[in-house]
Amino acid sequence: MRAQVLALQVVLPSGKVITTGSRAPKTSAGYDLTGLFVGSEGTLGVITELTVRLYGIPEHAVALRIVFPTLGAACSAGAAAAAGLAATRLELLDEPAVIAANDHFGTSYPPGPCLLVEFAGSTESVRSDLELMHQIAEENEASELCHALSEEDRVRLWEVRHGQAEAVRAAWTGMGVRSTDVCVPISELPGAVEVASTEIAQLELTATIVGHVGDGNFHVAVAIDPTDPAAHSNFERFSDRLVEDALTRGGTCSGEHGIGLGKIAALEREHGDQIAYMRGIKRLFDPNNIMNPGKIVA
Amino acid sequence: MRAQVLALQVVLPSGKVITTGSRAPKTSAGYDLTGLFVGSEGTLGVITELTVRLYGIPEHAVALRIVFPTLGAACSAGAAAAAGLAATRLELLDEPAVIAANDHFGTSYPPGPCLLVEFAGSTESVRSDLELMHQIAEENEASELCHALSEEDRVRLWEVRHGQAEAVRAAWTGMGVRSTDVCVPISELPGAVEVASTEIAQLELTATIVGHVGDGNFHVAVAIDPTDPAAHSNFERFSDRLVEDALTRGGTCSGEHGIGLGKIAALEREHGDQIAYMRGIKRLFDPNNIMNPGKIVA
Repeated sequence: MRAQVLALQVVLPSGKVITTGSRAPKTSAGYDLTGLFVGSEGTLGVITELTVRLYGIPEHAVALRIVFPTLGAACSAGAAAAAGLAATRLELLDEPAVIAANDHFGTSYPPGPCLLVEFAGSTESVRSDLELMHQIAEENEASELCHALSEEDRVRLWEVRHGQAEAVRAAWTGMGVRSTDVCVPISELPGAVEVASTEIAQLELTATIVGHVGDGNFHVAVAIDPTDPAAHSNFERFSDRLVEDALTRGGTCSGEHGIGLGKIAALEREHGDQIAYMRGIKRLFDPNNIMNPGKIVA
Repeated sequence: MRAQVLALQVVLPSGKVITTGSRAPKTSAGYDLTGLFVGSEGTLGVITELTVRLYGIPEHAVALRIVFPTLGAACSAGAAAAAGLAATRLELLDEPAVIAANDHFGTSYPPGPCLLVEFAGSTESVRSDLELMHQIAEENEASELCHALSEEDRVRLWEVRHGQAEAVRAAWTGMGVRSTDVCVPISELPGAVEVASTEIAQLELTATIVGHVGDGNFHVAVAIDPTDPAAHSNFERFSDRLVEDALTRGGTCSGEHGIGLGKIAALEREHGDQIAYMRGIKRLFDPNNIMNPGKIVA
């Protein structure tokens, strides 16, 4: 996301309004305050306007759903596609996620781990990407590969992914949902998902795994009885284990959800030596600690 | 560049060594110190290791040289290509730049404004990009469009661009060279280059214009008699005028060269309201002002 933001209007805690960056595609005019505010979770100022990078509308787009015999095969195919092809979307769903979606959206996708992939560009480039994606799917023993050809089919296909939060809430009636957010180097994704999968089984969690495979980022959504403290501490043990594994693999505790309150200890583990500087930046912009206090750096 | 850097090892002024970021393709673990150090021109610490984003080697690549009747036509074609096509390189050379290159490298390219363009990817995607580039060239009345097919021809073609600094130094014997670095929104590039061109003529400068058109960034290299103070102040007036124009267009005073000493006033003009915060960041990391003192923020 950060790379897509060119400029920001920010209201600082003092009430002063600044505009960082510019509309130019790149800049080296001083320290990068734009990047500093992006992902600062409201702790440095309030973003009131943002200028994003624009891209042309592609001539052609095709979405695919590819079903694999195992989660490992889906991850390997996803990692291969992420490394070699320029998919515009590349998402993983494990079997429980597909089942939850089928139940909630009335789809009848085969209940198995799958990748949802989209390629966009010129008709020719999409065709050649599709050809390579077919090869990757075959090499990883995919059992089904379906193209969503109509606009309607594409929307339906992506609904299954975008509606995951909704689908698991409907599936897990009366339960709360907590989610992990580790992100690892693409080549480490199959290993990291395998660890998550093993831990889910060992801890007997009710959970789904969905992943932004193209980014090496995946979320495990876990059903939690909100009234049961043991369930929460069980989730936290699980989450800690995933963070520990991600850091060992050269990854990060948070790909996109941020630190907030819940991952302060994880941030300490990942960048402990930099917390003092982050705290200094916080004090510089917000000396009275009035902006989302206690988040990211306590 | 900033978006291509995933992680940094930095030696801080205190002697402490930190590693920002990770090998994960994205992260939202705390404030973005990686982006803060990139482009900080050695004022916050010494970067001793960096982890960059990797891309697959493309199956196919084609480089083009396209000659236009006017600089304006070359810029319009460049802006159209930058907005609609994913060129891997997209560079502009004005007529004096081509002549300097011919003289220095023994090439015999037609002396006129030109674009150097490269497309890379699958054979099919390159073919469709080339087709669109041909259309854009025709619409802008290009007089010549040559493909560099062999590896040797491609290297030779890019030598003309990469060797520009060398070529103008050879052409302007005994003279010094100073350069501008404004960057503007792509749609503003033709207008900004026209202003530069008009100013060059009015101030009777010996100069070349070369541009990273795909980024909206261009450099005017100006021949300066190093012993003549009037020549330097003449250049500074010219440079100020370009910065003023770039800022009016929503651009920046520096696309990639940075602020150093020479653009401190320009940075003040662009982000005057943020200098106090940049100074605060400088003090936070380098309280004794021992890292490249006086640069970016005085």
